[in-house]
Order: sequence, then C-alpha cells, then structure tokens
Amino acid sequence: MNTFGDNIKLTTFGESHSAAIGGVIEGFPAGVEVDKNFIQSELDRRKPSNHKASTTRKESDRIEILSGIFEGKTLGTPIAFIIRNENQQSDDYDYLRKIYRPGHADFTYDKKYGHYDHRSGGRASARETAARVAAGAFAKTILQSKGIEITTTVKQVGIAQTPDEMERLIEQAKTDGDSLGGIVECVIKGCPVGIGEPVFGKLQAQLAEAMMSIPAAKGFEYGEGFGAATMKGSEHNDIYIFDNEIKPATNHNGGILGGISTGQDIVFRVAFKPIASISKPQETVDKQGNSVQLINRGRHDVCCVPRAVPVVEAMAALVIADNLDL
Amino acid sequence: MNTFGDNIKLTTFGESHSAAIGGVIEGFPAGVEVDKNFIQSELDRRKPSNHKASTTRKESDRIEILSGIFEGKTLGTPIAFIIRNENQQSDDYDYLRKIYRPGHADFTYDKKYGHYDHRSGGRASARETAARVAAGAFAKTILQSKGIEITTTVKQVGIAQTPDEMERLIEQAKTDGDSLGGIVECVIKGCPVGIGEPVFGKLQAQLAEAMMSIPAAKGFEYGEGFGAATMKGSEHNDIYIFDNEIKPATNHNGGILGGISTGQDIVFRVAFKPIASISKPQETVDKQGNSVQLINRGRHDVCCVPRAVPVVEAMAALVIADNLDL
Amino acid sequence: MNTFGDNIKLTTFGESHSAAIGGVIEGFPAGVEVDKNFIQSELDRRKPSNHKASTTRKESDRIEILSGIFEGKTLGTPIAFIIRNENQQSDDYDYLRKIYRPGHADFTYDKKYGHYDHRSGGRASARETAARVAAGAFAKTILQSKGIEITTTVKQVGIAQTPDEMERLIEQAKTDGDSLGGIVECVIKGCPVGIGEPVFGKLQAQLAEAMMSIPAAKGFEYGEGFGAATMKGSEHNDIYIFDNEIKPATNHNGGILGGISTGQDIVFRVAFKPIASISKPQETVDKQGNSVQLINRGRHDVCCVPRAVPVVEAMAALVIADNLDL
Amino acid sequence: MNTFGDNIKLTTFGESHSAAIGGVIEGFPAGVEVDKNFIQSELDRRKPSNHKASTTRKESDRIEILSGIFEGKTLGTPIAFIIRNENQQSDDYDYLRKIYRPGHADFTYDKKYGHYDHRSGGRASARETAARVAAGAFAKTILQSKGIEITTTVKQVGIAQTPDEMERLIEQAKTDGDSLGGIVECVIKGCPVGIGEPVFGKLQAQLAEAMMSIPAAKGFEYGEGFGAATMKGSEHNDIYIFDNEIKPATNHNGGILGGISTGQDIVFRVAFKPIASISKPQETVDKQGNSVQLINRGRHDVCCVPRAVPVVEAMAALVIADNLDL
Repeated sequence: MNTFGDNIKLTTFGESHSAAIGGVIEGFPAGVEVDKNFIQSELDRRKPSNHKASTTRKESDRIEILSGIFEGKTLGTPIAFIIRNENQQSDDYDYLRKIYRPGHADFTYDKKYGHYDHRSGGRASARETAARVAAGAFAKTILQSKGIEITTTVKQVGIAQTPDEMERLIEQAKTDGDSLGGIVECVIKGCPVGIGEPVFGKLQAQLAEAMMSIPAAKGFEYGEGFGAATMKGSEHNDIYIFDNEIKPATNHNGGILGGISTGQDIVFRVAFKPIASISKPQETVDKQGNSVQLINRGRHDVCCVPRAVPVVEAMAALVIADNLDL
Repeated sequence: MNTFGDNIKLTTFGESHSAAIGGVIEGFPAGVEVDKNFIQSELDRRKPSNHKASTTRKESDRIEILSGIFEGKTLGTPIAFIIRNENQQSDDYDYLRKIYRPGHADFTYDKKYGHYDHRSGGRASARETAARVAAGAFAKTILQSKGIEITTTVKQVGIAQTPDEMERLIEQAKTDGDSLGGIVECVIKGCPVGIGEPVFGKLQAQLAEAMMSIPAAKGFEYGEGFGAATMKGSEHNDIYIFDNEIKPATNHNGGILGGISTGQDIVFRVAFKPIASISKPQETVDKQGNSVQLINRGRHDVCCVPRAVPVVEAMAALVIADNLDL
Repeated sequence: MNTFGDNIKLTTFGESHSAAIGGVIEGFPAGVEVDKNFIQSELDRRKPSNHKASTTRKESDRIEILSGIFEGKTLGTPIAFIIRNENQQSDDYDYLRKIYRPGHADFTYDKKYGHYDHRSGGRASARETAARVAAGAFAKTILQSKGIEITTTVKQVGIAQTPDEMERLIEQAKTDGDSLGGIVECVIKGCPVGIGEPVFGKLQAQLAEAMMSIPAAKGFEYGEGFGAATMKGSEHNDIYIFDNEIKPATNHNGGILGGISTGQDIVFRVAFKPIASISKPQETVDKQGNSVQLINRGRHDVCCVPRAVPVVEAMAALVIADNLDL
Repeated sequence: MNTFGDNIKLTTFGESHSAAIGGVIEGFPAGVEVDKNFIQSELDRRKPSNHKASTTRKESDRIEILSGIFEGKTLGTPIAFIIRNENQQSDDYDYLRKIYRPGHADFTYDKKYGHYDHRSGGRASARETAARVAAGAFAKTILQSKGIEITTTVKQVGIAQTPDEMERLIEQAKTDGDSLGGIVECVIKGCPVGIGEPVFGKLQAQLAEAMMSIPAAKGFEYGEGFGAATMKGSEHNDIYIFDNEIKPATNHNGGILGGISTGQDIVFRVAFKPIASISKPQETVDKQGNSVQLINRGRHDVCCVPRAVPVVEAMAALVIADNLDL
C-alpha cells in the first residue's frame, strides 16, 4: 500500500512529523540524465506559496538524492531520495489529541489501528504527496525524452470556472473561515499508441487508481466521462479517418480504447472535495463521545486544488512511464 | 494484467471464442460453504435475457468448478472454474477481419500487438466479465456471512432516470439502430469500519481501479463525487455524533475517509458510454486506410448498463472481500 | 503461493482428487507456435511408467488447452490448461483419515489448517507437479527457439552412481519395502550471457527457490556448490581468456556470476530425500496420540528421483524463460 | 529484484560508493518497541573488525532511522533507514576500470548493462548486505517477542571444522595471498508449527531463495540435506510420538514438512565460495581482450564466512517474520 507501479515502482515513506519523508524508485532505466534542479523545481510547485489558497506552514522541501545516480546519470539501480521535515515539534497539535476531526482520517485510523497520529495526520497527511511529486519529476524526465507532455489545469474551484471568479470565491471562503473543492483536468500529449494493458491493466484503471489515491479526490472520469452516459453510440463513437495515417477523427474516448492509448490526447478530470480543516467552529465529539467544539488553530489551505495540480501531474507521469517500453 | 486483488486474487483467462473462459481464485479462505446454485444464479443475472436492451447471442454459461471445493466447502486451495464457450465458430465475423470498428479496441490492439482478434474482441470482449461475475459470487458468499450486502441499481439510461423513461429510450434507440450509455449506483451496506489501506491502497483507489477496468466504464465517483467540487467544507464535512456509538451524522464522504471505511454505507457510481456496436451504418476505414461503410450484422445490446450491474457488483464484492480480515 | 514467476507467471490449481488439476500461464509471448504433441510428451515423461521405481497408479494425464492459443499460435493472452483426475474415489484412503504419516505433510497441514486432505495429500501431493511439467513444456518451446537446451540426469540413487548399481538398489529397496533418495543434475546449455538480476533477483536465488519448491527436495547447489567451501580463491576463480570472444576459461561458478549468467553452461544439482511412503510397517501415532502401526496399502514409487527429472527440468525452463528478454 | 518478502517487505537501495545505502521496511506491525542500540549492535557484528579474516576498509556504519517509529514504537508505517557511505572516493579503483576481475560480477554486469561499476561492485558489492542486517535486526525484534531465537555458527572454513584449525588456515591463506570458502549452519529455535505455505511458498523455498541471494553463496540444504540422498525412507522418516503432545521423535527433516514448520528446530546450511579478490597475481584479460596481470591493491577479507553469519541470520529472521501471523 506504500508502493505504486509495476515496472517503475515508487515506494514512499515518512510521516508528516518524522525525521524525513522520501521515496525509493525501482526499475528506473539506466543512463537517463537527471537534472536535479528540475526535480527541485517540481517540488517547489507543490510548496505552499503566497497563493491566497495556501497554508503558511514553512516547508523548504529540499530534496537529497541518496543513490541510483552517478555522474549525473541514472545507474538502473534504485533511486532513493529524502526530504527532511523541518517542523517536527508536535506540541502545536496537542489540543487535537482526543478529537475526531470531521472530514479527516482520525476516526477511521483510530478504529483500524487503535491509534492515530494527531500530529497533522501522520501518513495520511498530504505531506506524503511531496514524495510523489519528486518521483513524478523523475518520471517526467523520461517522458520529456519521448516527447510526451503533461499539462494540468484547474477547471473549477467551487462553482467558479474562470480565474477571476475562482480568486473571488477563495477570498470569500477565507473570510468565511470555510473551504472549497474543485476539479482539475489533465491532458497528456504525445503519448504513443499502444500504452496500457487489457482486462485489469487498462490504462484508465491505472489512472483512476492513481488519482483516487490522492487525498481528497472524490471522482475520476476520462474522455466524455459522466457526460458519455447521456450520449448515443452514433455520437460518441470516434470514426476512423485516413489523414497520412489512420486515426480517429474525434476524441470522445479521451485517448484510450479498450484500455490502450490511441495516440490522441489522453484527457481526464479529477474532482476534489473541499478541505476538511476549516476555521469555522465545528460541533463534533471527542474519543469519549463528549460533545466538543473544534476550532482549528493551525493555518490551512482554503482550497487544495492548486496544490493538487502537481500531484495529479506526478501520478499521471508515473503511470505513463510505468507503461512505456523502455 | 489478468490478475486482480492482493489477498483474494482472481486470475481470469479465455477469449470470446476459445474453448472456455474461466478463472482461478487464490487466497480464498478454507471452510466456507459454497452454494453452487447461487454461483450459477449470479452468472444467470449477467446473461443476455429477453430484456429489451440485450443481444440474443446464446450463452448458456454453465459453470464447472474444477478444484478448491470438497464436500461443499472450500479447502483454502485455489478455486478454479470454467465456463465453456458454446459458439466458437468465427465465420460470422469474417467480414470484420480488416475493419477498425469505431469505439472498439480493434485499432489499439492492432497497433499494440500487430494483430487483433476480429472474432468479437477476443480478450477485450465483455464476455471476459462472466468470469468476474462467477468470482464475485464466491466473494459475495463471504460477504453474506459477515452481513455485508451489495445493492446495485441503474440510475440513468441516456438522459432517463425512471424505469418507464429508460424503457422508452431503449425502445427508441433500438428503432434508430443506435445505442445508449448510463450510470449505475452501488451501495455496500454493513461493511465494518476499518476496511482499506492508507496511501496507494485507499479503498476508493481500489474501487476506482476495479470499476474502470470494466469495459465501457468512463467515470467513477464516490460519496458526493463530482458534486463535492461545488460544496464548502462546512457543508461537506460529516460531523461526528454520539448515538450509542460514535459515528458520522451524515455521509457526504460515501462511507470512506482517508481511504478507510467509516462503517456507513459505501456509495459509488460508475458511468458507462453507449455501446460501440450499433446497427446504423458508420463511415470508417479499413486497415489499409480505405473508406468503408461498416454495417454490423451481429446482434448487440442496445445499452450495456443492465448487464453491467452484476459486473459492478462482482467487482465491488471482490474488492471488499480482498480487504476483509478473514 | 500458487503462483510462480514474474514475467511469465504460472498459477497452478487442483488437488490430487479434485475434478482436475491445471494451470494458467500469464505473460507468455504472442505468436509462438505450440506443438501440442510436445506438451503431451513432456507430461508423459512424468507419468508413472513401467519403470521399476514407480507407482502403478493410473493417470492418463491428457492435457486440454482451454485458451490462449488460436490456429496453433499463442495469442499473448493467458494460456489455461487442465488435466482431468481420473481416479477421484477417495475410499481407498479412508484408513489414513486419522493417522499422521511420517515424512508427509499431514501433521503440519493439520496444525496449520485444522484439517488435512487424507486423500493422498491434496495440494501437497506430487500430483500438482504435473501442472508444472505442462507449463515447463510451454517454456521449453520458447527456449528451443532461442537455442537453449536443458538436460537433466540422475547422478545418484541412494549411494549408487551408475545405472546398473541404481537398478540393483531400487530392486533391493522394493524387496525391503523401503525407499531411496537421490541427486539430480541439470545442465542448461546455450543460455545467453546477462540473464538474471542483482540483489534479491539473482539467477541462483530464483533457481534455488524453484527447486526447493519441488516436493522432497532437500538441497540445492550450483557450480562447485558445497565443494566450493573447501577450495581456495586461486583454484575457484574462473580466469578470463580471449578465444574469439572474452570468456571464462573454466566454469567453477556454474555459469552464474553476481546473479547473472556468464554464457557458459548453467549447472546445478538438487538432492531429494527418500520417499516417505514405504511398505515396511511404521510405528507412529494417530491424531489422538494413540500408538498405531501404519501399513501403507497404496502403491508408491520406491524412488522419486526418476520422476523428479522432468519436474526439475520444467522448473528450470520456467525460470530461464521468465528471465529472457522476449 | 531490490525487494524481498511478501508481508514484511524489505526494499534496499544504495551502491557501495553512493551517498548512502539503506532500506525501507513495509508491513512491519505497529506498536513494536524498537531498541535502536540493538539494531546498531547487529550492524556492528557485520563490520570488518580486527578479525584476522577481515578487510580493513573503514565503515563506521551508523544507522539513521528516518520514519516509522514514534516515541520508541513502530507506527505500522514504512520504516526507512539509511547508513551513510563514508568513503566515496573512487580514485582508488581506477586501475580496475577496464579489467574483468575473475570471480566478480564485472563481466556479467558489463554484458547485461553495457557498463559496470568498477568502484568495488556498486550494487553487487557485499556492502548492500548491511541494509539486510539492519532490516534483519528489526525482524529479530519481532521474533524475540515470540520466543524465536536464531543461532548461526561457522561449521567449516576451507577444510577446517574446529576454531583452531580455522584460524590456522586463515593465517596460512593470508600469507599465501589466497582466500577461503566455508559453510555456515543456522538453527531457528522456538518457531511455532504451521509457518510456511504449500506449493511455491514452501518455507524451504523461501529460505533457499533468501540464502542464495547472499553474495558468494553456492549451496543450500536443510535437515539432512544432500545427505538425505543416501538414506532410506525407514531411516529418514521422522516417526511421531506422544510426549505431552504429538511431535516427531527425530528431526531428519530439519523442522519443515510439506513446506510448513513442524515446531522443531529449523536447521539449514549455506556453502560459500572463497572470496574472489585475492592478493596473488592473476592472469586475466581486460575489456579489449588483452592479457593483463591483475594485482589487487585493495585490502580484502580472506574468508567471507565470519561476516556472512549476521547476513544469513538477518535473512532467516526476515523470512520467518514474513511468515508469522502478526
């Protein structure tokens, strides 16, 4: 459950307040030139910034690569990397020690494990996604060399679908002490035809698993997605044409047919719920079942969607790289 | 790619026109009483029936269990079962030998493998799902003994959301030689709290992977799903109450928090595209790129959604059983 | 535990008295011509024959291939095959229902599972190896096309190292109602340099795992094996020479260095214990701990080694094929 | 190939001259008290010491645990640890850049990967086993709490079977600039009955795989091992007796029957070849095939067997812990 992928395997480790988080990438091909600055720049994209929607927790998130690279090139051996956690004091979270926070994993972790890490979620914390972003950057290095490009955009924040409107809603939510969800769209260009496997290994199944493993993700769709349910076969079918080569004339299928890439753009969307931590007081219960009023003291993102963008992209890169014939 | 699950593993085999299709279930617990009639009845639910939406291909779909059961009880050894394919003549499909059918996997399989099985899709055929339904029936046998119940309903066929309206649309599509998509909702009742794993093993990730591996599935969402994107944290958060025990007062999260079941109903939906095979003529190209008009001679479902119901249910049963502490 | 291999995966199923035993081979490459007579002939090599060392249980062991092959060639889809068990009556074994047979898995199975299959061992029966031999024949089909040849010989039966002496010992053991062990040597010729993986995937680790999973195997060694313990580095090291190409001048290492094949013959030996079922009466206890005298009524091999030969060969073929770049 | 185990999984990383080597342990149970001093002391057992057989390379081998432990107890999350490589300068090895050292993996790595790490073997270096020893110490922590104890002894160095004779041989080999092999015996006491799995998951298969993945291992046997080949069934069979409980009266089988532990001592032996690096000059060829005389300048162990002891023990601990019902 800490490992993702079949050919290029990522294992992540670390809790939100352990000495470090990190990952080990197995199966990465040998001889790939790795630009450490690019890896770091991807991590920086995920960092809480001055962006209005973000927390002010300080994470400098410097990556240290421990193995697998020699003289700037991969060796084909496991690539291990770590990111030190700078803020390991957990006193700040003491008031949460006995409370099940609504929308968080406290309750389910406590029931499953008999304990939970009140220090901001431990392994359930979105901090774990930093390791995914770092690993995704390695995967992107492969994709770039093959001309495959991934672009991810925020399609919706709450009900807003334009940047101005998104910003206004985020400002309002911050004032209200509330939070917002949203939708992200990912487009993978240049993916060769033939990526993916039949039956249980369909590319859309791999992408869905990857995306739904991201904290706060509530839905996945590709191509026409849920909209396909209302279309007729004669509308949805992508007719083939000959235009220098045989290819589908349209892309209702979102670049995947029978679980295998068509060579067209792979297009999918991921829906995220609003962030569970809000400033507004919430009436809930503690572990003994006593009513308590929860008032979050920490600083939290108002909307996870902007920071989810590099995570979605990283997971997409890992899935595609995992399926390439390297 | 032919194997699903971690603890209870299903491997399926067989093409739409091989001697048989079937499966092997590993990790199934010993000592479970198996009612062969129940297994068969689940298979019968998937059979093309007199239902207006269905094909008239004859599949008697009798299951033969080869191993793993002795005196009516499981041995803990692999359960192997087969379902003979009765109609193995492939002459009927000869006219399709050189055509890339729109919406089917012919094109991508051909590009990937250098060949494709024109005889109704081979391994890509939805016939493969019969093995899933049989395996799902074994999984359900476990779930029933634990008081876990799965109910799956057709929520939508095309734009229709009521049975009458669905029937009318199907009738119309049949007349038009067209096909319809739809949405299925699955509710899992009685699932204990604590099912699922953190990080990459989240229950929603497993369910998404399972559902998106079903032919024609285009989207997956759980709880509020895509609707959660437009909700605020204060609306979406499920507040905890004490009512004999601690539990969430609402279920916006769809029975899963942090990847782990809350003990509430697990609720998810799957969107299906309209069936690719339609009677209406379609202009497409053959393998040489020449324009051809495709007129399907076979008989096909008008809408896959009714027959997808037992498949969705089987995959859900396999996921839940796979995660139970047996 | 019922699945072997990483790229070419074999899953076996079936108990010694179920309807059938069989296997599913995943990951087998597409387009390989399969000679069903060859597969059957390999199975025939394992059959109890008129050989003096063998049981007279009748097993016609006809293989039926259910999927994965079309017009004589593999499809790249799972190859499923079954071998019907002809003798499913278990009454013959009733007298063993309460006895822990010395040297058999009855005791450990009973302790682990709370029951055991007194009908000749169920899944623990050497009958399971028929599925391995069938799968190994498929693997050999690949190896033959690459010029890789596996030869396995009986090096020792009891203390005998020549055929005449072996035959005499077997005759004597039969007269005595006793049984014999032995040693098998396997030589793989034509294996290209570079097969195997570092660290935990070393070729010798894979071979050792494969061989030690064969019933009655007690030891594995390759190259100089246990004899290497008494050699000096200056004796054991294989010096490189140039003779048209660079290669080791000797082969003390048995064709593997650092876990990876050198291109020389891969040579290993497997030791087998004497068969546990003997005609001589044995004093043991029943499940209640009462003293009983066990007198086997069944007919059993006197020495498993001749029949182990095709099993060793099949497992070797599966390991090598699993590691080839196909 | 860098991951070992099914339930408790160890992934190791790091080359002999990368910034660090280390490992990630997944599936380790929560709530286990970990004594960091014990982990370090196990690592110290593997360090080259003043022992006459050992190299003088300086490795302080301090372990740093990065995650998975909080307030002295495991969290059930991945345990990541690193050991910094202190001597990363590789200039010392420049003279080996073009030579295939006899008995080393240079030749096979070069053929497989098109390059090899002349800096003391990279990933093939026995340095990698430090991560196994650290992980084994975690596994032992579980075993100790269950009353399972592993003892490993050097049975043979060269032809010597007594400590005095071993010391004399080592002294002689050092004088001669030569090296020695040997045999290690491992006894696991207190292992409950029922550990291990049927068919491909037999305990002896797991142990054999584990042991044969250790650098320089050439053979594995358990119980009577190769000696069993010369025994008769009436001699080898362990008869059951009742002595407070039912148990085998003897232990020819080495504590495992049908792949599953009997509750008796598990006994196995591993043979190691003499160390490939010797001080004596060796005539070999370089990568161009030119004759060269190789004179090792580095300092090397004379016999790997003493340092193999903690590695054998660690791998045994990992295998047993992996099979326990935790």
